[in-house]
Amino acid sequence: MLRALELAKKAYELGEVPVGAVIVKNGEIIAEGYNRRQATNRALSHAEIEAIEKANEVTGDWRLDGTSIYVTLEPCLMCAGAISASRIGEVVFGAYDIDRGFISSRADINKLGNTDITVFGGIKEDRCKEILDMFFENKRRK
Amino acid sequence: MLRALELAKKAYELGEVPVGAVIVKNGEIIAEGYNRRQATNRALSHAEIEAIEKANEVTGDWRLDGTSIYVTLEPCLMCAGAISASRIGEVVFGAYDIDRGFISSRADINKLGNTDITVFGGIKEDRCKEILDMFFENKRRK
Repeated sequence: MLRALELAKKAYELGEVPVGAVIVKNGEIIAEGYNRRQATNRALSHAEIEAIEKANEVTGDWRLDGTSIYVTLEPCLMCAGAISASRIGEVVFGAYDIDRGFISSRADINKLGNTDITVFGGIKEDRCKEILDMFFENKRRK
Repeated sequence: MLRALELAKKAYELGEVPVGAVIVKNGEIIAEGYNRRQATNRALSHAEIEAIEKANEVTGDWRLDGTSIYVTLEPCLMCAGAISASRIGEVVFGAYDIDRGFISSRADINKLGNTDITVFGGIKEDRCKEILDMFFENKRRK
């Protein structure tokens, strides 16, 4: 999660909503991503999707069974769907997204997707939330 | 929808689950896609996502307001999320996917994503379903 936070900082410095994600297999990080939707102009460029695409590249397989994704913010509907479609087995997220989080806040990903994904929410929540709050605070001031 | 069906045929010929999609703006097709998850080894390579990525490229914008997506099969959770994240205004789909469709079958996309997307389901349903049935029939025989 510390690495995911570093990636969120990278997004922050680029003026993007600061969210970072890493995918771990057998205790090792195999892929990383951070939100860069403004830079790429891709609706898909959320941190989780960036990481999933890289993990698919690295493993040469669209199935990511046996991997975990660590992400600083609770995934949205699209990312929850992508996690389920790519068969990631575990989701560890930092800050809860009460309005748009589709892992446990707005809906339970496992009920939604008929999956059996292990979920841990609120991990290093304060630090994950702090960088998001900072970003939106600065945005309001401008 | 006829062009989406042609794209589904392309996927079929490549041994992929035959689903095709086009994105339309002001009556013109601006992007196309078909399922090629096996070929690309990307979990993301559903027809809808391929089309959304191309539409983002063509328009240079991640926001696809004012566009419609035509797709031969009801979008899954991931694609419903991507449609909502990219702000597509209208979804027209062919075959219903009772088990995995997240536009109207398993869930109502607008309730799920807090959106106001216009939905038309069952358009050219027979032909969209026929090519899928053919694909899975052949697969079972092998």
